[in-house]
Amino acid sequence: MLIAANNPRISVRKIITEKDLLQVEWADGYRSQFHYLWLRDNCPSVPRINGQRNVDPLIFAAEPYPKKVCINQEKKIAIVWANDGHVSKFEPVWLRKHDYSNGTQAKWQPKLWGSEKVSSLAKADYSDILQDEAKLRNWLLSLRDDGIAVLENVPIEPDTVLEVAAHLGSLRETYWGKITNVKSVNNPVSPSFTNLTILPHTDLTYFDDPAAYLLLHYLQISNTGGEVTIVDGFKIAEVLRQEAPEKFKLLSSLPVKFRVQFTDADLSAEGEIIRLDCLGKVKSIRFSCRSIQPFNFPSEAIKPYYEAYCTFAQMCNSDEYIMRVKVNSGDLLILDNHRVLHGRTEYSGERWVQIACIERTELLSRLSVLSR
Amino acid sequence: MLIAANNPRISVRKIITEKDLLQVEWADGYRSQFHYLWLRDNCPSVPRINGQRNVDPLIFAAEPYPKKVCINQEKKIAIVWANDGHVSKFEPVWLRKHDYSNGTQAKWQPKLWGSEKVSSLAKADYSDILQDEAKLRNWLLSLRDDGIAVLENVPIEPDTVLEVAAHLGSLRETYWGKITNVKSVNNPVSPSFTNLTILPHTDLTYFDDPAAYLLLHYLQISNTGGEVTIVDGFKIAEVLRQEAPEKFKLLSSLPVKFRVQFTDADLSAEGEIIRLDCLGKVKSIRFSCRSIQPFNFPSEAIKPYYEAYCTFAQMCNSDEYIMRVKVNSGDLLILDNHRVLHGRTEYSGERWVQIACIERTELLSRLSVLSR
Repeated sequence: MLIAANNPRISVRKIITEKDLLQVEWADGYRSQFHYLWLRDNCPSVPRINGQRNVDPLIFAAEPYPKKVCINQEKKIAIVWANDGHVSKFEPVWLRKHDYSNGTQAKWQPKLWGSEKVSSLAKADYSDILQDEAKLRNWLLSLRDDGIAVLENVPIEPDTVLEVAAHLGSLRETYWGKITNVKSVNNPVSPSFTNLTILPHTDLTYFDDPAAYLLLHYLQISNTGGEVTIVDGFKIAEVLRQEAPEKFKLLSSLPVKFRVQFTDADLSAEGEIIRLDCLGKVKSIRFSCRSIQPFNFPSEAIKPYYEAYCTFAQMCNSDEYIMRVKVNSGDLLILDNHRVLHGRTEYSGERWVQIACIERTELLSRLSVLSR
Repeated sequence: MLIAANNPRISVRKIITEKDLLQVEWADGYRSQFHYLWLRDNCPSVPRINGQRNVDPLIFAAEPYPKKVCINQEKKIAIVWANDGHVSKFEPVWLRKHDYSNGTQAKWQPKLWGSEKVSSLAKADYSDILQDEAKLRNWLLSLRDDGIAVLENVPIEPDTVLEVAAHLGSLRETYWGKITNVKSVNNPVSPSFTNLTILPHTDLTYFDDPAAYLLLHYLQISNTGGEVTIVDGFKIAEVLRQEAPEKFKLLSSLPVKFRVQFTDADLSAEGEIIRLDCLGKVKSIRFSCRSIQPFNFPSEAIKPYYEAYCTFAQMCNSDEYIMRVKVNSGDLLILDNHRVLHGRTEYSGERWVQIACIERTELLSRLSVLSR
């Protein structure tokens, strides 16, 4: 629902005080209900600094009740509170926007996809993204909703990924530094630094808080192989929830450990492969058969868990869900690392990818500021 | 249970092959059971790079079964697999350490505390922490278990907090930069930058992933007021779970939004005040009555949620749970920001605190490497 301050439908037709709440009838016939507690808590008179208020929630220990409610000369809803005589004046448009009484406000939903997505990936040009805010905004919207977007014609200059990261959010440094240079090397410190196939996985699984967005800048592409494989982990989770609810339950209710050990570090974290939020919605995917540790479950869960784990891995490798993305030197892939798994096929020759990370809140803040 | 490689009790007395699993009887009479699936998955012959293996979990689609099991000349348990003739050789000490069959391995538990903790805070000296690894390790163990530790005699030099952070882990930069300078200023961008009372809260609530550890370096202490208030949020959550389970349930099952808006940023995130992990254990606390947004719950939850929210806030301000820590210039407090709330009383005069952040995995890695 679009709510504009000058929308005549948002004017208040009638207000009715009930026991615990105020009923508001709007000019368009819509009705809202606001608890006195909620109204007192959100009184606009409380001084705010950049949206932050310094308020003690204990003031609500005594339940607020209105002595008088009216629509004042400014067409605001004015409430005189019985407890302390304080007056709260609400903008109708603000109340309508924050109405929780007719079902809570719609939440963002990811757009799930399978292998067919490869033909409709959101692509943008590097120079457009730097110069054109409307194009940047649309590209970021796709990234938010699909969990993936492509940037083309990025200069094939080392460390350009840092410049792109700085344009989109704040860099998140990890154990690997500001940039991870993924190449095939002698004495690799991880299977990533070989030329072998890497199955689809999320990165930094062995961190308590894996970075949310990965920027993969392809500086050099191998002649043969090295194809990029990409899977929507949220899609797989939702298919499992529908088709194999017991497997979904196991993967979302037993934590597994991920770990990698170096001379100077011992990085480990525990988490479910499918993490749910408190409302049961899929919040994130944590999956890497490279860093996963021996399962430490109640004995009776071992066999069924392996079945669920193998099904998940199988789906991550199935033609139905896997996108095979053809990248060129100068492409930059950006991925939601809490959702989208990435891998590559075996390759020969030289290949060089630079990876940097940014966090979700900073990237969504960029999108929000562009949308003001 | 301490397991040493040379412990004679860890030698294997008997092995019995059952339908799905191998039963191991140890010299000390203890019995363990290991599923063939689990054994095949954790076969030590799989090449590893720093603990990471590049293995396809699909190999377990066909269920492994042993053709032969024996204790070989090296006193390892050797299994010849019927499926493919592959041989897996297990070190008994490794198996005993990873035994999941007699109840899963004990997990770390926080040590909960109330206001009495103030007399037994883990304190260490700045120069000791830099030079003495045993002292650093003990101090970090207390920090991990209590969620708070104090460093004394830190040089009263701006930016020393960065040096301490680098010694303990990797710096986590945020919107606020590498360091947040908390002072009372004209035109504050947040209530923090006033001289007013700030109620106990966790920091960066409006980030999807608030930083895990906060380092607060007190460069200048006000003459009057500015006392530091500290609360163990895990303790409050557990008391609520016992004494007011309905309130605990509401605070852990309804997400609330936190937000702060600036000219160049719009930072917001949703989360429960008490976040549980998939096993129902308290994972983190997210609480700030400054950045919390109007509740957007099903209408019937509004009143009971306010009751739960006020009880939580009341407990965070009660003499039973609140520690009032007397800090001096040159003190540095380190806090687990996913657990411990901090605040301050009103003050007059000049006061200057520099705050930096590090993440959990990097800090625990430091502890783990020191414990090798």
